[in-house]
Amino acid sequence: MKSSDETAARDLNALREKKPLVHNITNFVVMNSTANVLLAAGASPVMAHAENEVEDMVSLAGALVLNIGTLTDEWVRAMVVAGRKANELGVPVVLDPVGAGATGLRTAASQELLGAVDVAVVRANASEVLALAGGAEATKGVDSVHSAEEAAEVMPGLAKELGCTIAVTGETDVVTDGEKTLEVAGGHPLMGYVTGTGCAATVLVGAFLAVDDDSVQAAAGGLAFFGLAGTRASEKCPGPGTFWIRVLDELYNITDEDLRSAGFISER
Amino acid sequence: MKSSDETAARDLNALREKKPLVHNITNFVVMNSTANVLLAAGASPVMAHAENEVEDMVSLAGALVLNIGTLTDEWVRAMVVAGRKANELGVPVVLDPVGAGATGLRTAASQELLGAVDVAVVRANASEVLALAGGAEATKGVDSVHSAEEAAEVMPGLAKELGCTIAVTGETDVVTDGEKTLEVAGGHPLMGYVTGTGCAATVLVGAFLAVDDDSVQAAAGGLAFFGLAGTRASEKCPGPGTFWIRVLDELYNITDEDLRSAGFISER
Amino acid sequence: MKSSDETAARDLNALREKKPLVHNITNFVVMNSTANVLLAAGASPVMAHAENEVEDMVSLAGALVLNIGTLTDEWVRAMVVAGRKANELGVPVVLDPVGAGATGLRTAASQELLGAVDVAVVRANASEVLALAGGAEATKGVDSVHSAEEAAEVMPGLAKELGCTIAVTGETDVVTDGEKTLEVAGGHPLMGYVTGTGCAATVLVGAFLAVDDDSVQAAAGGLAFFGLAGTRASEKCPGPGTFWIRVLDELYNITDEDLRSAGFISER
Repeated sequence: MKSSDETAARDLNALREKKPLVHNITNFVVMNSTANVLLAAGASPVMAHAENEVEDMVSLAGALVLNIGTLTDEWVRAMVVAGRKANELGVPVVLDPVGAGATGLRTAASQELLGAVDVAVVRANASEVLALAGGAEATKGVDSVHSAEEAAEVMPGLAKELGCTIAVTGETDVVTDGEKTLEVAGGHPLMGYVTGTGCAATVLVGAFLAVDDDSVQAAAGGLAFFGLAGTRASEKCPGPGTFWIRVLDELYNITDEDLRSAGFISER
Repeated sequence: MKSSDETAARDLNALREKKPLVHNITNFVVMNSTANVLLAAGASPVMAHAENEVEDMVSLAGALVLNIGTLTDEWVRAMVVAGRKANELGVPVVLDPVGAGATGLRTAASQELLGAVDVAVVRANASEVLALAGGAEATKGVDSVHSAEEAAEVMPGLAKELGCTIAVTGETDVVTDGEKTLEVAGGHPLMGYVTGTGCAATVLVGAFLAVDDDSVQAAAGGLAFFGLAGTRASEKCPGPGTFWIRVLDELYNITDEDLRSAGFISER
Repeated sequence: MKSSDETAARDLNALREKKPLVHNITNFVVMNSTANVLLAAGASPVMAHAENEVEDMVSLAGALVLNIGTLTDEWVRAMVVAGRKANELGVPVVLDPVGAGATGLRTAASQELLGAVDVAVVRANASEVLALAGGAEATKGVDSVHSAEEAAEVMPGLAKELGCTIAVTGETDVVTDGEKTLEVAGGHPLMGYVTGTGCAATVLVGAFLAVDDDSVQAAAGGLAFFGLAGTRASEKCPGPGTFWIRVLDELYNITDEDLRSAGFISER
């Protein structure tokens, strides 16, 4: 049996060879940065949100990323249309429920999307996962006020209830479908000082899903790849501006052998 | 009595300790860059503009930033809703009237917001301030064609008329509520070659307002902090791309002692 | 007769002296990056898309850039309004038909804009040009799957049919109005790993059009300038993050003499 790190390395090569189109309906804050993340990694991003275009666009895609970071009702409608078409075509869908728990609109939109679309992976921070699990405490805006460990307790149950894989990022990332659970090391505290790092993790999960239909493995692989970029970028780093630029450089430079030998993925 | 520089230094520490949520309804151009500015400085940004969400979001916030840089009527309506809720809750509001004077829509939207919402600080460039004061000359797009000195003449009267603090940025920044006037040194001409530097100054004013309810002091403190980041970033700097990355690094690295000893704030 | 490189160098100086306002109705992904490109180059960008503002804004502008990268019907309507006003005032218009061929909406919007507005230059990648020429093959998202050479065959006919200049970017850029054809060297493969490089080329074509009404020459000049920035930025470059930052630095630093002596423009 191949190890998860071995598979992640193979998936990274597949990603660079196939250059899958990743269709994003995402927030205004990160459109540029997550497009750059996907390009640096070797994928081909497209951002398209018009309700009368998303079905055509997702038909060309290897994965669909739905991110509610600056949502309105209109955008959520387009996400549902795109998501259903993706389901019809077998295109895997990743959901980033940005700020779920912070406002009623965000929690409701996340639930609506999870009800209307068959989502392969929910990539979220701990507070968002707790909000989706019905936790009473509010998220403070879009930054997590809980640890991944806190979220990990409710994740297997939530994953089974939702019928999808849940990937929570934090000091250690945790990925589970309720049966198999993987932990992913890597990353760096500077990630908390750059906007859209969670969203970046999400699009890389999408890119890995485009080449690997094992959603737990694909999510762990995308997170390990991003975590390694963060770890390498943080070396002798003067601050968050430089850090992010180096993350993009690293996503471009990290080889399959680098990812394999990092050994970031382990069974929980 | 503490000096303004001393107070700014203290506010910077308070900001990093409290990590206040700064709710932005802002333009598409700067959403990413001002989110990064707030994160690097130690605050927690959120961008949310849906009319059916902004009241919930601003209820979690320490400050609200309204920026009309890529306005439509719909966005201005959401700004009014958010601004009134902020007033109700005592959350300070900063307005950046981007391009006021350039088009009728921008001048009218600025006036509508100032009429409907109790704004703590207007952060603007000189041309925008002159437009708000009823000056006949048009702004050329969103870049100022006037000096801060020209604006300074009309500012005390305008501040009293509007009942708020006005902060104009330029070679020397000027902040006044019509009674107390402070000048802020620092910054660098390279700021004129990067988009959204004015908007970045505005969000830092918002972040300082979240920890200091003296709006003249908070505005001066935010501008001094940003000016120091610009001054330090400009050293041996090869151009505007590198400059901005270093500004983000500096916002993360500047200590309270650095800000105090810069001594950028003086009474006019 | 001055060479095209000589004229491009002269235009670069004119651009920095006049600092023309370039009005953009563009996509969410690149608003920040193309604003920075224009500022670094010496122009003054503004992004404004409200249908009730665009006529006022374009009246102040030296060029109008229309880019359909994240289009909706509403935005296309604003582009038509702005484009017609630009035509009325003699403000040159550049169109970037991002993703034409990928979806019906994008192909139709490009054709609608070309029908309703007198466009000076279409700046596109090869797949987009082939789509506009009625080619059957679909673009994969927004990245080209064809070479500039393939597009070059259909360009003279398409340019005559549309009555405009077409500029296709690729390993070698080609610019033609159906009579005169120029080739432009420069650039670097790393450009394919950064989002919005095509859009950046487009805005520089716009900036050069603001100071030179020979649209073939202006397009070639803008592309040569951008290509030189890319070539210089790529030296000992660790990856696409750093590359883009250096591109911005180079756009600021390249002199008229640098551009002249690069000698990137030749007759085909």
